[in-house]
This record gives sequence, C-alpha cells and structure tokens, in this order.
Amino acid sequence: MVRVGVIGATGYAGAELVRILFGHPEVTLAAITSRQYAGVPFDRVYPAMKGVVPLICEEFALDDMCDRADVVFTALPHKIPMAVVPELVARGKRVIDLSADFRFRDVNRYEAVYQPHTAAALSEEAAYGLPEVYGDAISRARVVGNPGCYPTSVLLPLVPLLKAGLIRTEGLVADAKSGVSGAGRSPSLGSIFCEVTESFKAYKVAGHRHNPEMDEVLSREAGGAVHITFVPHLVPMSRGMLTTLYATPDGPATGAEIRARLTSFYADRPFVRICPEGQVPSTLHVRGTNYCDIGVVFDDEHRRLILISAIDNLVKGAAGQAVQNMNLMLGFKESAGLDAVPYPL
Amino acid sequence: MVRVGVIGATGYAGAELVRILFGHPEVTLAAITSRQYAGVPFDRVYPAMKGVVPLICEEFALDDMCDRADVVFTALPHKIPMAVVPELVARGKRVIDLSADFRFRDVNRYEAVYQPHTAAALSEEAAYGLPEVYGDAISRARVVGNPGCYPTSVLLPLVPLLKAGLIRTEGLVADAKSGVSGAGRSPSLGSIFCEVTESFKAYKVAGHRHNPEMDEVLSREAGGAVHITFVPHLVPMSRGMLTTLYATPDGPATGAEIRARLTSFYADRPFVRICPEGQVPSTLHVRGTNYCDIGVVFDDEHRRLILISAIDNLVKGAAGQAVQNMNLMLGFKESAGLDAVPYPL
Amino acid sequence: MVRVGVIGATGYAGAELVRILFGHPEVTLAAITSRQYAGVPFDRVYPAMKGVVPLICEEFALDDMCDRADVVFTALPHKIPMAVVPELVARGKRVIDLSADFRFRDVNRYEAVYQPHTAAALSEEAAYGLPEVYGDAISRARVVGNPGCYPTSVLLPLVPLLKAGLIRTEGLVADAKSGVSGAGRSPSLGSIFCEVTESFKAYKVAGHRHNPEMDEVLSREAGGAVHITFVPHLVPMSRGMLTTLYATPDGPATGAEIRARLTSFYADRPFVRICPEGQVPSTLHVRGTNYCDIGVVFDDEHRRLILISAIDNLVKGAAGQAVQNMNLMLGFKESAGLDAVPYPL
Amino acid sequence: MVRVGVIGATGYAGAELVRILFGHPEVTLAAITSRQYAGVPFDRVYPAMKGVVPLICEEFALDDMCDRADVVFTALPHKIPMAVVPELVARGKRVIDLSADFRFRDVNRYEAVYQPHTAAALSEEAAYGLPEVYGDAISRARVVGNPGCYPTSVLLPLVPLLKAGLIRTEGLVADAKSGVSGAGRSPSLGSIFCEVTESFKAYKVAGHRHNPEMDEVLSREAGGAVHITFVPHLVPMSRGMLTTLYATPDGPATGAEIRARLTSFYADRPFVRICPEGQVPSTLHVRGTNYCDIGVVFDDEHRRLILISAIDNLVKGAAGQAVQNMNLMLGFKESAGLDAVPYPL
Repeated sequence: MVRVGVIGATGYAGAELVRILFGHPEVTLAAITSRQYAGVPFDRVYPAMKGVVPLICEEFALDDMCDRADVVFTALPHKIPMAVVPELVARGKRVIDLSADFRFRDVNRYEAVYQPHTAAALSEEAAYGLPEVYGDAISRARVVGNPGCYPTSVLLPLVPLLKAGLIRTEGLVADAKSGVSGAGRSPSLGSIFCEVTESFKAYKVAGHRHNPEMDEVLSREAGGAVHITFVPHLVPMSRGMLTTLYATPDGPATGAEIRARLTSFYADRPFVRICPEGQVPSTLHVRGTNYCDIGVVFDDEHRRLILISAIDNLVKGAAGQAVQNMNLMLGFKESAGLDAVPYPL
Repeated sequence: MVRVGVIGATGYAGAELVRILFGHPEVTLAAITSRQYAGVPFDRVYPAMKGVVPLICEEFALDDMCDRADVVFTALPHKIPMAVVPELVARGKRVIDLSADFRFRDVNRYEAVYQPHTAAALSEEAAYGLPEVYGDAISRARVVGNPGCYPTSVLLPLVPLLKAGLIRTEGLVADAKSGVSGAGRSPSLGSIFCEVTESFKAYKVAGHRHNPEMDEVLSREAGGAVHITFVPHLVPMSRGMLTTLYATPDGPATGAEIRARLTSFYADRPFVRICPEGQVPSTLHVRGTNYCDIGVVFDDEHRRLILISAIDNLVKGAAGQAVQNMNLMLGFKESAGLDAVPYPL
Repeated sequence: MVRVGVIGATGYAGAELVRILFGHPEVTLAAITSRQYAGVPFDRVYPAMKGVVPLICEEFALDDMCDRADVVFTALPHKIPMAVVPELVARGKRVIDLSADFRFRDVNRYEAVYQPHTAAALSEEAAYGLPEVYGDAISRARVVGNPGCYPTSVLLPLVPLLKAGLIRTEGLVADAKSGVSGAGRSPSLGSIFCEVTESFKAYKVAGHRHNPEMDEVLSREAGGAVHITFVPHLVPMSRGMLTTLYATPDGPATGAEIRARLTSFYADRPFVRICPEGQVPSTLHVRGTNYCDIGVVFDDEHRRLILISAIDNLVKGAAGQAVQNMNLMLGFKESAGLDAVPYPL
Repeated sequence: MVRVGVIGATGYAGAELVRILFGHPEVTLAAITSRQYAGVPFDRVYPAMKGVVPLICEEFALDDMCDRADVVFTALPHKIPMAVVPELVARGKRVIDLSADFRFRDVNRYEAVYQPHTAAALSEEAAYGLPEVYGDAISRARVVGNPGCYPTSVLLPLVPLLKAGLIRTEGLVADAKSGVSGAGRSPSLGSIFCEVTESFKAYKVAGHRHNPEMDEVLSREAGGAVHITFVPHLVPMSRGMLTTLYATPDGPATGAEIRARLTSFYADRPFVRICPEGQVPSTLHVRGTNYCDIGVVFDDEHRRLILISAIDNLVKGAAGQAVQNMNLMLGFKESAGLDAVPYPL
C-alpha cells in the first residue's frame, strides 16, 4: 500500500479526497491536515464519516508529512501551494496540487491573473492533470497541476476536435453552469441558502480566472492562439457542472465525423461517456461520480455545433480527477477507487 | 370596471392571470374556465387563494363568456385558441392569447413547427405582444399574440441593438435557462422533484419551437434574415428565466454606445431595468414581478458583447406581460395591477 | 399619511417591513436605518427593489428618527431594543419591536434565557403583539412586543382551545419546522446552501428561547402553569413554517366541538384560515402572505388531537404581523397593506 | 457467487437494489425485471448507469427467474407479491419482499388497512426484516418482509427502550418527515417540483398504513398493546427521513440510563450510530448510506424524552436494509456491499 497525505482536508474538495482515498484499494490515507480544524476528529467536521473514518485533522508540518506519506495532495487556496509544493518535491514526494499554482506552463499567464509565481521552474515542469489528454506526462510527473472544474468541462469536449482541425478556433463560446459547492465551504452572503435557491445568475462574466487556463490548453492543442468566450453561472444545486459549448465546424466537417472523432478519442477511457445521438447529459447522471458525459448536437442547416458536457465539479472537477492522476502516476488501474456503481438519483 | 374572462385558468400561467386580474384596480374578473376542474372552486385547486378568490371554475361556453366579459385571455395549449379566438373576435371581444397560435405574422413559420393554421388571416392581423416594441399595434389590436417566455428574454436585449445596427446579425447565440414551472402543471417524469433537483440539463437543443418565433421578430427588426442559435436548459428552481446572449458588435461600436442605446430605448418603460455597469441580473431579483432586468458586459479586448436578461417566466414571460398588453389595449396605466413592491427574497 | 421608520431595515425581517410599509396605503416610509449598510441605497442591498424603493439606508440617530417618524419599527438583535425603545417612547413615539425584548410580561422569564432586562417596567407595560388574541391591548399600546415566529405558529391553534378548556394542559407537544430565512441573513456554515439542501434536522431540542415565550402566553390563557415540549427543525426551503401540535382533548370534548371553537374564535379575523375537514395546510399556500392556516385532525379512537399550522415565518411570523399590529394601533383596517392576492405558487 | 434477481427493478427502491447488488462482492445480479420497461436497457432508464450496468430489463417470468436466481428481491406494489412470493418459495427460493405483504405476523392487521391476504400462512411464517432486532429469525427465514421506511425510523430508537421498560407505552408520538423519493417515481401532481419546493406539509395524518405496522412490532416488543400517534410529513428534498419521537420515561429512568441502553443495544451493530451527547442527526449525514443515526435528548426538568432518528429512506429504509437482510440470510458479513465511505455532502 502506498501511503498518501492530504494537506487541506476539510474543504469540500479535500473532504472528497478523504472519501475517495480512504476507500481506495491501493493506498493508505496516512495523514490529513487542516488549519481550521487542527486537533479535531474528521468525523466531527463531517458527521457522515462517523464510525468510518477515524482520522484526526492535524496542523501541517513538513517533516511529519514527509515521514508519513509518499504521495501528497494539496487542496489549498492558490498561492500557498507554490510555497509548500517545492519543499515536498525536494524531499522526493510526488504531489498532486488542486489549486491553480501548477496548472500553467506559461507562468506569465498565471501571473497576469493570480500573483507573482515563486516556483516558476516547477510550474513549467509540472504536468497538466487532464488524464485523457496528458496521461503520459502525468504518469512521469513529480508535480501534477490538477485542472480547474470549468476547464475540465470545457477541454474534454473541445480538445479532440481542435487537435483534428474539425472546428474553427474563432468564435468559441463556453456557457458554463456550476452547483454551489464550487464556491467552497466558507460561508458568504452569496452562498447562503436563501440567496441561492430560486436564484440563477452569471458571475465574473468574461473575467473568470479559469479562462486563461482554458485558453492556454486550447491554444497548445490547436497549435495556435485560441480565446474562448467564457461565462460561468451559479445553479441552485449542490453538486454538478454543465457546460454548453458553441462552435463552428471547420470546412466540410459533418456531424457524423465530429461524433466519430469524440467516440474514438475516448474509446478506451473509463471516465468519458459520449451520449448516444439524440441524448444530452444531465448533472444528475454524473453526481458523485468521476464521469464526464458529453452530448453532441449538430445543426446542419445553420452549420453550428453544440457540445454539452456534464461533470460532478467535486469529483471529475477536483478530487476524483486528482485520484485518477495519482492512479496514472503510480501505475494503478486508472479507475481504482473511482469505480463504485453510481446512484440512480 | 372592464369585465375580463380567463379561458384556461388552472394551469400555472392561467392561475397567475387570476392572481393579477383579481387584484387589478381597473377590471373585474368575471369568469374563469377550466376543462379539468369545471365546477370546482378555484381555491380548491390553489388553496393559497382561500378566502380571497371566491370564483368557481366553469366549463367554457362561448355565449356565456361573451355575455360576461369584454376582454378575454386564452391560456390554452396551442391549436385550441385558433378555433376559439376567431369566434370571440367575431362577437366583438378583444383577446390576448398566451399560446403560440397568434404570435406569427408569417403563418408558414408557424405551420413549419406547429400544425396547419386555421385562422391565418387573424394571425397575420394580430399584434405581437411585446409592449416595449409593439406598443402602438398592441393598443389598437383585436388580438394580441402574447410572446413565449424564451422569446421575451431574447428579444428585449437584442431588438434595440439590431434596430440600431450596433451588433452583427450573424453568430448570435442565446443560451437560456428556465425554472420548471415553464413545463406546466401536468405531471410528467421530467418534472417530478427527484428528477429535477440536483439536475441541470439542456433540452430540445437547437430544436425548440420558440426559435422560429425569435427569428421572425429578430429578422423583422434587423431588416433582414436572422437566425439565432438557441439552447434552452432546465434549472432546479420553480420560477425564473435567465438568458445569456452572445453577440459581436458591428464595426466600431463601443460598450458605452451599446449600453447607452439600451438605456435610452427603455428610458420610459416601467418594466425593463438596465443593470448598472458591473452588475448582472439574477432570477431571484425579478421573482414574482413583471420586470426584465438586463446586464451588459462588453469584452473590448476580444470584441465580444454579452447580454444577460432575467425575467419571471410566469409573469413577464406570460401572465404579467399579457396584463401589460391589456393595459395598453384599454388605455390604462401600463403598470396597472403589476406594480406591487417586489419581495426582497 | 402616518410617517413610519424602520430601525434595522436590511435583515430579512427588516426588508419585509420595507416591502410592506412602502406599499402600505396609509403610511409613508420616512426613514430606514442599517448599521452595516449605512449610506447604501436600499436597492443595492436588495436589487429586486431597483426602480421601486428609492430609499437610502442611514445610520440610526435618535433625534433624526424622532423628527421624521411617528411610529417606529425596531428589527434588531435582542438586547439593543431595550436600550433604544424607551428613548423612542419618551419622545412620544409608538413602537413595534420585533425582538424578544418586549415579549415578556414576566421579566424573570426573559432574564432566565436572555440577559438582565434594563427596561423592565416598559416590558411589563408592553402588549404582546398577537392581534387575534390581544387586539385591544395592542390598539392602546405604546410598545408592542411582536411575537416570535414559532410562538405565533403554536399559539394561534392552541389559545382558543385552552381558553375554552377543550384540551388538557399536560402533555402538549409542538414539533415545528422552519425555512432557513429564520436564521437570518448573516452567513454561517449552517445556513450555506450545500449544508442545507438535502438536510433536515432538529436544533436547540427542548432548549430554544421561544419555549418560555410560548409557555408564558399558554399559561396566562389557560389560567395555570403550562409547559409545552417544543422541538424546532430546519427545512431546506427559504420561507415558511409548519408546526404540528399534539394534544389530548379534555374530558368528553369531541372533534366537532374543537373545530367549531376554532372556527368561531377566528370567524371575523382576516388572517386565520381554518382548513376544511380532511385538508391540512402547506407552507406553499401561505408563502408571502400574512395568513395562518390551521388544519384540525381528531383521532377519536385514540383520543388524540393533532393541529397543524402554517405561516410564512417572515410575514405572519415577523413583518406582516408587525404591520397588522400597527394597523390596530392606528385604527386602520386590520388588513391594510397586507391584502395582495396570494401567488398560486 | 450467489445469483440474485430483482423483480421490479426500475422504481426508486428497485434501482437502489440494482446499484447495491451490482456492486456487492458476494453476489451476481443475474436478472432484473420491469413491467414498464421490459426490453429496455437499464441504463436507458437510469443514464447514470451507462457503461456500468449492462443489464436489460425483462418481463417477469417465473420459470426463468427461478432458473437464474437463488435469492429474489421483490420491489413491487403491495398485493402483487402475495401472489408471486409463494410460488418462488415453492421452488426453493429465498425471498426478500419490499412491499407490505409479508410485514405482518397478524394478518388481520394487514387486512384492516390493505386488502384480503391470499398467503396468510406464509405471512405468519415470514421474518420481519429489521436486522438489529430480528437477526436470528431473518437468518433462517424463507421470506423476509422488509420493513417500511417509517417503521424502521420509529422502531430502531424505541424497541430497545420498550424491551427494557425504560419508557411508558402510553402517549408515544412519532412526528416523521420524508424526502419525496418515498412517493416513488410515478408522476403525480403532488410530486412535481413546483408543488414540492418551498412546500412542507403533513399527509395522511393519523391514517398512514405504516402506523399499524409500527404498532404491531412495538406491541410485541413491549409485551402489551401499544399505539403510537404517527404523523408523516413531506420535505422538499429528494432522499432522507427524519423522525422525532416523544416519550415519557417510566418511573425513575434517567437520561444516562436511556442513552446507555441504546448504546449497548447497538454496540456491535454496524449500521446504528448513537450521536454523542449534545449532537442530533441530519438526513444529510446518512444520505446514500445504510446508517440509522439516533440522537437522544432528555429533558429532566419536564421528564420528557426526545429521540431523533435519521435514515436514507431508499437505503436503510428500503434497498439497503433488504441487502443487509440478505447478508444475514446467506451468512455474509452484515455490511457486505453496504460499506462504501459516505459522501461528505
């Protein structure tokens, strides 16, 4: 059994990591840390875990973590990981970071929307943790920058088509909708029940920091500069993310070609499901799972392609994808720990 | 007091008509009909109305309705109104129809997505009931075709800009999200709580019948053929509709010009509110009201315009707009019966 | 027009006061205050009010409030009103206080669960603002202590039966369920969407501070010491409160007598609706209204009485009842400003 | 591997059976049937299962089922199982029935609220499937009548106390609240989203058919006739059930004794968790699990005991408990197939 640790275990993504790793057949969850809940049993923070997860949240201490864990997940607000991760790597640990700090190969992009980067070389070396696209790099990486939830939902449908030149790089639109758990567990006026229920709204319109992250990957895979217009919205639900993508087929590309390309690109991948023709995904059907469901609608008359992806923002959009990356890094079965039968509702 | 009747009073839009008309200062709600609940007190169907609305649902009978009402609202499934409305008009009644039957000037468009039209001349004569755009025609009309909820949310932001040539007619996208009340009150698997909650999904992608309705009006106001790519989605909430529109400014148009155009176009209109710069609308802020809130975001770097509209699908998207049309037809204050102070939540 | 002021206008109860008073036909809302939002337009705090309520939130200042308002509502956390209200009364203002500070005639009860009372004499003089029971006292009062939401839902069904000796004073149980708006607008972990949705739970079991408030009134009306077992619960919804009461009929009382007593007690009151036999209330049917709906089920075989009441916790449970009290104090129609037609959903 | 079949696999409880049994380490799910969806792939009915559960729904045929399965679950509307189960038993199958048909030892009780029983002898022989109470009988049973969801939530807290004589048998009250999935998957007006959200209400007050089921077991365990006053309510959530129980301690029983009794009674049982003092359960903390969490509050001053239980109505209240029963019948580990790490939210 490989020993793993989670730094930042009591936010929603961290708690999902605890859930998945504690039940993972190949690893032992050796240590979990939390600044806010140091010293508190994990099952006091999440009473669902009572009688199941007997761990105590600890204050993070580098030496101690390095003694007890071989692989470390960091689920912390950005800026903190770029201080911590280099030290873990220096001690020979392999790290999967769920913040934005190691998602960018071009540090300038990062600095334009976050802050100065103090571990630029490590960021350039890191693998972008989208396993269906960068599996080889991930399997060898010392540091994986786990993708943002929105970029995951945008990139999985678009990358195969851009790589194949089946859609144009101009005029791309991503209209994305997320459940409220994406806002995290810290209370704020915008996340309280009475302000969320019966409220659907956009936020950070054309200004969200996941936009440059998408653009970097889209540009790399398209082989040229790509900008996607991106508008995130908040849905009155707890978990789930659905993104509707609008694209224009390039040249004579047909709907059948586009569908075939997606189907073949993901043919052997356990976690991407292409919906049969005439069907579109729902967040309910991926809730609690690591799946990304993709629906394809081609409007031949108007030459418009509509792609719709659905993920659980906390699983494929965060903790599940992080574990999928770990599985690749350690040579486990890609779906290990992530293959429970989904709930029907 | 003008006497009004509602045919089809027990669906959600019909019940909203009852709510608004019963409290309207200038009219008397003289008769309400319902096939399903004929003979049943309205407050048995909607117990909220107990002690307030003492009306009994009746079976529709033409003579009786014509004896008792001067203005008639028809809130029926499409195809039925085209049989009923001509008879009402023949008796000198003025009619506001909430179905699709009288929304199209070009009957061919209607027939392409609905069915053969048996009252084509009356449909061509009818006014399209978007009061902010067609107020003059509405005030004189014998029949008003009350717009669909989706078209209302799409047209109010776009029409002023298309009329002024500030945006291009190509590449328009409307990504729309509706609360579940839009699906009506007839039970179906897709509308039961357990299938809706935690579920966000698209439906009728690029195939919804409101699309040709939008296209007809957009084309008329733009002075040339316009097709908008339209994808409706279902939100786990009861009331509300938010539509995110993607457009490209034409030529050198600036964000300030676009905002100024919308502000001036709606300067004197009681029910359209342009959000201050930096703010975007939420369905919660228009819930239960006849407002349409519009947010404007201009991405100058990428020359992209994003417009976001929010309405209550049952009020500005149906019954409220119908009453607003009646107010214009009868020379009442435009906001009569629709000006209650909104709920804070 | 009577001039009124609201101290503490930006919490949920305060905002409901603004909504109702701004639309009230007999009063002018002259001043609103808010510590947190002093200087901010009210419609920035509640964007629903844009274009409707042009008021600015102000810092509270005694002289200024007394210059501008004849009647003052205080919607503040308990302990603050007992400092402010005496000063307002000293200037000849009539006050309706929505906190607990003036709800108790027996100050010892208050002090046992809140804190030392610094305006005991005024508390003893104040009227308990349950208009259906204490209308006369309210109409003459200088200070009205507006009831808690839970006590309102418990007292309206029980008081008529206890006064008439139709139920026993022992063994009373109130199992109450409240929407989340009752927890107020200040963000806390317990009120964020992800912790509320799909969560139903009890809180402050047999230890809620509304319990002694109920007991004081029940005892007074029963003419002897009464204690009711009270368990509040939190429902994943925004507005609404439903309380299920369990009682034992006294002696030979029949279900028909009990129902008749409630019907006659509330015969002339505009805001209490006794459900027809076989029907029970729902929070949805009183949402946004000042109604209290009461259902009566008598299990003759086991000699058990079950009473169920439904209110909107922010209206009949707070702001609406406060305005109803004001109407009595000022000799207005009891339902003035509170008689909009209810929403069907 | 034991071969199991599910008759009635597409209702919510049936689908949960499919989920659990398909992932169960000791059994093979050999056949599933559905009248409504015969011939349809299960993952078309529940798209969450795409790529996971490759089964096809079949029309039920006795011979075929008996050829392919050793143990059969029947998840059908009551009245049907009493025709089918005897035939399965006659072929040597062991059956777990999720309807009411085999829950009663006293067939008269069944017939008083359901209909004439055509398999009375088998009903009298059957074990009542509450594993924590009737584990021995279950392990030997040919037929297990799986308890109703409400009875499960009522009996687990009360039985140990009644058996020990720690509470009085008179005056018991069960105020129960259920998520909407308890109403099943057939669409009805009462289960559509718009009628459920923001609606909390009671139903079948003192007339629910689970009441005699509770009474039978309570009476048996108390050693004398017991009737509990039972009021079920509907909560605007999908899954979960919380029941608040009111009891009077018998004689000098203390809170500590009561807590100790519950703790020791369930000391070795994997699925009942007694909350630490000062904590109460939430439906969110048992969502998707087979746990029953029980909170204990003793009001010493008023000699009142309040017990609160939380379960997932589809798991411990239906499919999970059925599988737990199967585990006992087949000598598997009691928690086999039911021990996934719970979701944090």
